[in-house]
Amino acid sequence: MIARGVHRFMAELSRQTGIPLTQRPADGANPTLLIHSVHGSERVQKLDADESYELVVNESGAKLTAPGALGILHGLQTFLQLVETSTDGFVVSAVTIKDQPRFAWRGLLVDVGRHFIPLDVLKRNLDGMAAVKMNVLHWHLYDNEGFRVESKRFPKLQEAGSDGLYYTQDEIRELVAYAHDRGIRVVPEFEMPGHSRSLFAGYPALASGPGPYKIEPGAADAVMDPTREQTYKFIDRFIAEMARLFPDDYFHIGGDELDGHQWDANPKIQEFIHAHGMKNNQDLQAFFNQRLQTILGKHHKIMMGWDEVLHPDLPKTVVVQSWRGQQSLATAAQQGYRGLLSFGYYLDLMWPAARHYAVDPMSGAAASLNPEQQSRILGGEACMWSEWVTGENIDSRIWPRNAAIAERLWSPPAVLDPDSMYRRLGALSWRLQWLGLTHRSFTSLYRMAGTDDIAPLRTLAELVEPVKDYTRMNSLKTVWDFRGPLNRLVDTACPESDLARRFRDSVQAYIASGYQDQAAEKEIRTLLTAWRDNDARLRPLLEQSFLLHELAPLSEELSTLGVAGLFALDYLDRSQSSPESWRVQQGTLIDQAKIPKADLLLMVVAPVQQLIEASAGRAQKP
Amino acid sequence: MIARGVHRFMAELSRQTGIPLTQRPADGANPTLLIHSVHGSERVQKLDADESYELVVNESGAKLTAPGALGILHGLQTFLQLVETSTDGFVVSAVTIKDQPRFAWRGLLVDVGRHFIPLDVLKRNLDGMAAVKMNVLHWHLYDNEGFRVESKRFPKLQEAGSDGLYYTQDEIRELVAYAHDRGIRVVPEFEMPGHSRSLFAGYPALASGPGPYKIEPGAADAVMDPTREQTYKFIDRFIAEMARLFPDDYFHIGGDELDGHQWDANPKIQEFIHAHGMKNNQDLQAFFNQRLQTILGKHHKIMMGWDEVLHPDLPKTVVVQSWRGQQSLATAAQQGYRGLLSFGYYLDLMWPAARHYAVDPMSGAAASLNPEQQSRILGGEACMWSEWVTGENIDSRIWPRNAAIAERLWSPPAVLDPDSMYRRLGALSWRLQWLGLTHRSFTSLYRMAGTDDIAPLRTLAELVEPVKDYTRMNSLKTVWDFRGPLNRLVDTACPESDLARRFRDSVQAYIASGYQDQAAEKEIRTLLTAWRDNDARLRPLLEQSFLLHELAPLSEELSTLGVAGLFALDYLDRSQSSPESWRVQQGTLIDQAKIPKADLLLMVVAPVQQLIEASAGRAQKP
Repeated sequence: MIARGVHRFMAELSRQTGIPLTQRPADGANPTLLIHSVHGSERVQKLDADESYELVVNESGAKLTAPGALGILHGLQTFLQLVETSTDGFVVSAVTIKDQPRFAWRGLLVDVGRHFIPLDVLKRNLDGMAAVKMNVLHWHLYDNEGFRVESKRFPKLQEAGSDGLYYTQDEIRELVAYAHDRGIRVVPEFEMPGHSRSLFAGYPALASGPGPYKIEPGAADAVMDPTREQTYKFIDRFIAEMARLFPDDYFHIGGDELDGHQWDANPKIQEFIHAHGMKNNQDLQAFFNQRLQTILGKHHKIMMGWDEVLHPDLPKTVVVQSWRGQQSLATAAQQGYRGLLSFGYYLDLMWPAARHYAVDPMSGAAASLNPEQQSRILGGEACMWSEWVTGENIDSRIWPRNAAIAERLWSPPAVLDPDSMYRRLGALSWRLQWLGLTHRSFTSLYRMAGTDDIAPLRTLAELVEPVKDYTRMNSLKTVWDFRGPLNRLVDTACPESDLARRFRDSVQAYIASGYQDQAAEKEIRTLLTAWRDNDARLRPLLEQSFLLHELAPLSEELSTLGVAGLFALDYLDRSQSSPESWRVQQGTLIDQAKIPKADLLLMVVAPVQQLIEASAGRAQKP
Repeated sequence: MIARGVHRFMAELSRQTGIPLTQRPADGANPTLLIHSVHGSERVQKLDADESYELVVNESGAKLTAPGALGILHGLQTFLQLVETSTDGFVVSAVTIKDQPRFAWRGLLVDVGRHFIPLDVLKRNLDGMAAVKMNVLHWHLYDNEGFRVESKRFPKLQEAGSDGLYYTQDEIRELVAYAHDRGIRVVPEFEMPGHSRSLFAGYPALASGPGPYKIEPGAADAVMDPTREQTYKFIDRFIAEMARLFPDDYFHIGGDELDGHQWDANPKIQEFIHAHGMKNNQDLQAFFNQRLQTILGKHHKIMMGWDEVLHPDLPKTVVVQSWRGQQSLATAAQQGYRGLLSFGYYLDLMWPAARHYAVDPMSGAAASLNPEQQSRILGGEACMWSEWVTGENIDSRIWPRNAAIAERLWSPPAVLDPDSMYRRLGALSWRLQWLGLTHRSFTSLYRMAGTDDIAPLRTLAELVEPVKDYTRMNSLKTVWDFRGPLNRLVDTACPESDLARRFRDSVQAYIASGYQDQAAEKEIRTLLTAWRDNDARLRPLLEQSFLLHELAPLSEELSTLGVAGLFALDYLDRSQSSPESWRVQQGTLIDQAKIPKADLLLMVVAPVQQLIEASAGRAQKP
């Protein structure tokens, strides 16, 4: 594991510097980078593994020591980050780093149920995770919309439960080994008893309702029947098969968002509830989970589930993953359960990195836990739900924002400054490209434009962001169907516009300087001028492609904002107050421009508004 | 083969449109695209295979018919090229295409001896070749600098003859199968008797000189000893092993650029020459080639070699590949030999696509051959010699220029217009990105700059081209050593600057319009202004990175050209003649700017010079 890690390190260093480096160890007496690990690696990586390392770089060379292989891997990643292009050559600053993670569980959930994500895309994302020292891939392997694992015992699971896109067992073993090589555990999630319609496509007898079941959208949600022994027999055999495929100690059974309708509608299930002295569906789910827990125990697995699994009847070994928040996590910890946070780390909500970065598993209700209770909070997981995500755009949804979450889970809680975080994110972002990650690719713009000259489209694309939270769901007319083309600008646009952030910073710097910061003013003027002129250049493209028609209002608004911003700048330049009537008129434009169009937000509205307001003279300094 | 081809076609169509497409065949009664092949595919693809196809697209659907699998593959590629983004949706125009190649041999040589090229890089280039209907990968598997094939019989070949980078036999079989799936033959080249120093590192007894031999640069060239039976015993056993690995009928033995020094210096070899009544080393090479030819025949292979193998003693089955030109090819054809052209198709010379495009295997001396002789000219091969090429930059050296050569070898000779070729090249270039080709990637600029903000560096990078022909060899101080870092701008800069070509076209359009073309003038002015201002923005980057220091004079010159061009434009705008003294002064700048720096050429010098000259008023129209 260390040898392969060093091999990858050499390849990455070679890529990063453009210097061919031989894979052979250097002269043992005079090493440039000495690596020493006290222990080797475990066949199956443990949650409580020591991941610490110490890296010392001085004039005579570099020395990396660690108690185990994981620390070595992390230290090598740190070393790669330290390599800088200087005026004399590639350099690594003299430094002594003693490093270890704050949390033991630093994960990324990837949902492959809604959209299948190809194996090679997952691999390059594992490379990215290793670069930011994340150590768990939470593989959400099926959902109502698709079952993505080959089962040899129950082949109808993948045959009837998918559109033909699933991972073979060989591929799964390959991915697990690939992750293990990079110090990453793979925790599979198999949703039970709900979110599992795709199971019933092949095995309808497991369901609580009469069926028939299909993976096509629009069908009612479906839940397992927890009252029949046949269900547990199936689960036992299924988990036996999956437990061998996924060697990790932990096994996620989902358990979230149980839809009670099927249980309510089934008289035999209601009868079962009464006969066993249960009060409601929650009790029945707890009964189901207890049975599940026993089966998992038999197969040497520790059970994990979402908030909803929490029930006094469950043993304390269960790990709770919270999509609800720190309160839910704290409650679990108080009751003796271990847990991890995902609330605040949902990458599909299209939040800026700084917002995720500010979320701390130990904050809120968790802050007042006692040390023992706090020790039960294992860490957190970023979540990449894939309703609007395919292999083509997933990298841009995960990266670079995921790195902010990774840092939150690794670094001390006092490291909080967002500006400093964004500087690190910028440096990391282009380095991630060496790993094959395509988060900065604009190739889909060529498809939309149908031509090689996409410059004006790119200008607009770099200034918009997809609508936030679950707003985009509103665009689905009737049923939630995610099988359509994902080829609109909203599918390509980055969740966070770097250029818009830079523009906002320049506007703030300009205003804060009392309009004296000439460098900032020049940059603002250059950008505003380009935007003003962009609509005329972009218009022909928008007209000739059906994929671009919907962008016409955004393009117009960008030009209008450019014009308004330039006027405001001129007023400020001449130390004149802008006429109120003009500002009122601009206010209407601003309000209009704030409304999302084509599921996109124009991200430069607020700073232009600031310029306009500043031009009133109120904020003006002498 | 057809099934897998259709599978890839669906995946590519899906990628090209962003529409998820199922891999299942549609309703057989009502197909959208009907595919009919008279015959299936051959296990080993033949040179004389029928590659024709007919594609009919009308309102009721599309129909693709072909006599064989190769035609189907080509037709599917044509269909992909026909898919356009329109105002209403993705469309394919109604069309009837009857298509077949002009030449049966349309190849790309990739040299993996000087620099090892990873397997996945070769694969994506095979995808690119399939997209432009090329059908031969000529795999130049070793050279003095490295032996890149695993031999199980002679393991010291790869062990002593390489730096550890070579293809295993499994990998070779994988690549051959991958190519076969795409209608591409793989012809291996094993250089004999010269260019083969890496052979002797492990097996010095084969050489004509005393040795010792190593793959390190600077050592004298080395040649096999053709006078010893042991040599032929080795070759026989080696070819027996390689013949099984490479199923193609053809087997390339190199044979070029024989360095006679070792033979001259070896008294036993000279004695052999006299004893056998030979006149010189050429006769000895012919003797060697005859023996080689017999061995190849025993292993059912047809011998190929470079121009130098041509000798009256060789049988007419030998195929001659010409790096010397059409005259050499015509001479061979007159003597009854088949041949193919590579002269004029050397991608490492950094020529513009149009120059390669103008080279026709049937032109020059070949044009006056009779039809039977002409039929012996099989086609041609682009050559990617890898002295300055690694897996990182090879795509940008091959693409998109290789597509111009592919078109020359496929299309009728009358299709010649370079402007029209460049339009097709532009459309193809971004589509090639879907195949994973990285020819338009600028990631290495981040390495050079060591920062995320590379805009001004990119501005310069897009306007320079590497020096042409073998000029760069001059930068090698003493020995030809290609093992150094390839991380300068010359290693990244595209062989042909699209933007410089566009600028040149705009300047010509502006001048031709009598300075009335306002759109052209605006574009010229915008670019010149950006260049004028670029040096100030780029300067801090150039100073902070050792990889960029050498670009300072280029950056300054670009700004100077911007200033000069803007002055000239102002004179033209005002219909004034520029002062002669000013023009003389600019002439000095222009002469200076024409000199390569950092092995790079600034490609906008000539059009700015045109503007300056036009400003004299001589070329001015009323």
